[in-house]
Amino acid sequence: MTTPVLKLGIAGLGRGFMLLLPTLAAHPDIRLVAAADPREQARRQFTADFSAATYSDVADLCADPEVEAVYIATPHQFHREHVELAAAHGKHVLVEKPMALSLEDCQAMIDAMHRAGRWLVVGHSHSFDAPYLRASDMIASQDFGAVRMIHALNYTDFLYRPRRPEELDTDQGGGVVFSQAAHQVDIVRLLGGGRVRSVRAATGNWDPSRPTEGAYGALLNFDDGAFANMTYSGFAHFDSDEFCGWSGELGQPRDPQQYGSARAKLASIHSAEEEAALKNSRTYGAGLSLDNSKPQDSAHNHFGLVIVSCDEADLRPLPQGVEVYAHTRRYLEPLSPPEIPRREVLDELITAIRHDRRPVHTGEWGMATMEVCLAMLESARHGREVSLSHQVGLPGTGTL
Amino acid sequence: MTTPVLKLGIAGLGRGFMLLLPTLAAHPDIRLVAAADPREQARRQFTADFSAATYSDVADLCADPEVEAVYIATPHQFHREHVELAAAHGKHVLVEKPMALSLEDCQAMIDAMHRAGRWLVVGHSHSFDAPYLRASDMIASQDFGAVRMIHALNYTDFLYRPRRPEELDTDQGGGVVFSQAAHQVDIVRLLGGGRVRSVRAATGNWDPSRPTEGAYGALLNFDDGAFANMTYSGFAHFDSDEFCGWSGELGQPRDPQQYGSARAKLASIHSAEEEAALKNSRTYGAGLSLDNSKPQDSAHNHFGLVIVSCDEADLRPLPQGVEVYAHTRRYLEPLSPPEIPRREVLDELITAIRHDRRPVHTGEWGMATMEVCLAMLESARHGREVSLSHQVGLPGTGTL
Repeated sequence: MTTPVLKLGIAGLGRGFMLLLPTLAAHPDIRLVAAADPREQARRQFTADFSAATYSDVADLCADPEVEAVYIATPHQFHREHVELAAAHGKHVLVEKPMALSLEDCQAMIDAMHRAGRWLVVGHSHSFDAPYLRASDMIASQDFGAVRMIHALNYTDFLYRPRRPEELDTDQGGGVVFSQAAHQVDIVRLLGGGRVRSVRAATGNWDPSRPTEGAYGALLNFDDGAFANMTYSGFAHFDSDEFCGWSGELGQPRDPQQYGSARAKLASIHSAEEEAALKNSRTYGAGLSLDNSKPQDSAHNHFGLVIVSCDEADLRPLPQGVEVYAHTRRYLEPLSPPEIPRREVLDELITAIRHDRRPVHTGEWGMATMEVCLAMLESARHGREVSLSHQVGLPGTGTL
Repeated sequence: MTTPVLKLGIAGLGRGFMLLLPTLAAHPDIRLVAAADPREQARRQFTADFSAATYSDVADLCADPEVEAVYIATPHQFHREHVELAAAHGKHVLVEKPMALSLEDCQAMIDAMHRAGRWLVVGHSHSFDAPYLRASDMIASQDFGAVRMIHALNYTDFLYRPRRPEELDTDQGGGVVFSQAAHQVDIVRLLGGGRVRSVRAATGNWDPSRPTEGAYGALLNFDDGAFANMTYSGFAHFDSDEFCGWSGELGQPRDPQQYGSARAKLASIHSAEEEAALKNSRTYGAGLSLDNSKPQDSAHNHFGLVIVSCDEADLRPLPQGVEVYAHTRRYLEPLSPPEIPRREVLDELITAIRHDRRPVHTGEWGMATMEVCLAMLESARHGREVSLSHQVGLPGTGTL
């Protein structure tokens, strides 16, 4: 018996959609049946690419009876409203990270989906990347003993890519804590079992022309005594893809001789409007279409250096697999190159809907990750340890 | 006018002395005139190597009128007593890290040296390594703007090298916080300006057969708002010399194909006595002598990955120099290979004594580093932020 194709509607044809488009287009169990976006050119492109219905309002998309599930990839601040709309129409939901900008919003989204009796998955985040999932499986096998310490580091040019003004305003969900810690925390929680007890963090907001968090350091303490040290810089100086074999975040080959391109490009721009225009000039329906979204990845997605210290070995997820540093030998637990990059997030959604299997990345999971991110901001602001109370564990571990 | 040679006496002919012996033997401005050690074979070897006086008691070494300065490399727990002896006899002192195991002892050592009117330098620590000193000079030049964030990481086999029982007992100064954080904190303080305001840390004591801290993660907040994230593992799994071009802690070339040698060697040992005997079988006077101490280093000493994020660039001290990741270009600020490895610690001592120039690594500096290390242990034990009150800045910055 084959699984019936999942009829998916897309809310928001922006950057999140473009990143997932290669996956959406290639996944055999997904059909794009509708989309909503305020930009007419994006809607026209969607019709051309998928011969599917389009709407200017997310509400109308959610009301479309053809749509079984909605992928909500609208700007962060609209996630709650759009999840509630989808729930009200009985749709399953995949909502982009960060789930929302407050715990109140996260809880409202969870409650709405519970009331509707539909599945909610939060993603894509990099914790869906195959190397982290494989490492998580290896940990669950108990072959390597308990997880004791996790180190995660990522140095990118995040802050100097073209941005809309709200992406540089923390109050509107801008900055690296909402956009990037949401990945790193999700990975670290996946590998550490999920339940963080308390957080101490410091954040860096150092460039007055990009007035939001561009860097952070954080120490996470888990319920079971394990701890994690996370460092992130989006200031476009050192590039930690060096520690991932010069494979990029999306699995693409990087050229270490290319340096400073993000800042160089920005240097030619003279206003926030011009910058936003540049960003919008390369978006779906405006220069980009299905044709630009063929998977070019040669290795798995990653989010920088991650080392998980277990009793019996250190595990290091890499774009080609998981390097195991055991007591007496070191070896790669290999992963086949991805045929459909990022398919894991859709597989989790489909498995939940078709087989009624609880996903890892539930609303509760996403809320727990946001609780850590918000605690990082609070800890940095007030210079103190912040205790957490909304943490959840991994399915099947009895610690949910 | 040439500087008169410094007549140095050695208190303790153990591991610290062996590590510094290539430097002591090669430095043109140092002459070894006496030594003290309880082991007769060590004393005999010293006489053979240096035609110099030897004593079984440090007190007698300190009373020797030939001795101008004493290098105190006895076990940690004797540092205070031996510094006080040297001070009582009007000698200058170089005392090994960790300076002492309590702030009370550190203060007593500082007071004794002040009363004696003699110089006290604390080292060798890796913060004397030329790449960190060069990075510190580059920061002081203000060419790169303010220091904002420091990341330091080191994964070694520290815990599985042959140890005496007290080296595995935290109360006696064992474990990686006293022995290894003393390096890493010293480096981070040097690069961050010295004044740490508060510390949050977690430590790992995971192997019942090595019952002391083998790992830690720590977040340090500096007075000026900068912060540092430090991670250390001595559990002999992942090896971070990979991030230093496979150059080892002492600048020696490493073979990445060699793996697990520390644990393999230890696996053939069946008791603490046997392990201590193994350690003692390769020590000065017992298998080792001046002949075994020729400098073999091809690059500078280092202490793992260090990245200093400044406003204008990330600086990454490496065994060959300091890699600069600036806005638009990346380049190596090169260092000549060391002619005399670790000479910087002796140069600082000699410059203080001969030119009356205040060293960086004063007793107050060493005490501030120990305050951070002790705060790390306290923070980990009680799960809370620990505030500091004995911090000092760098000379010449007006923040002493």
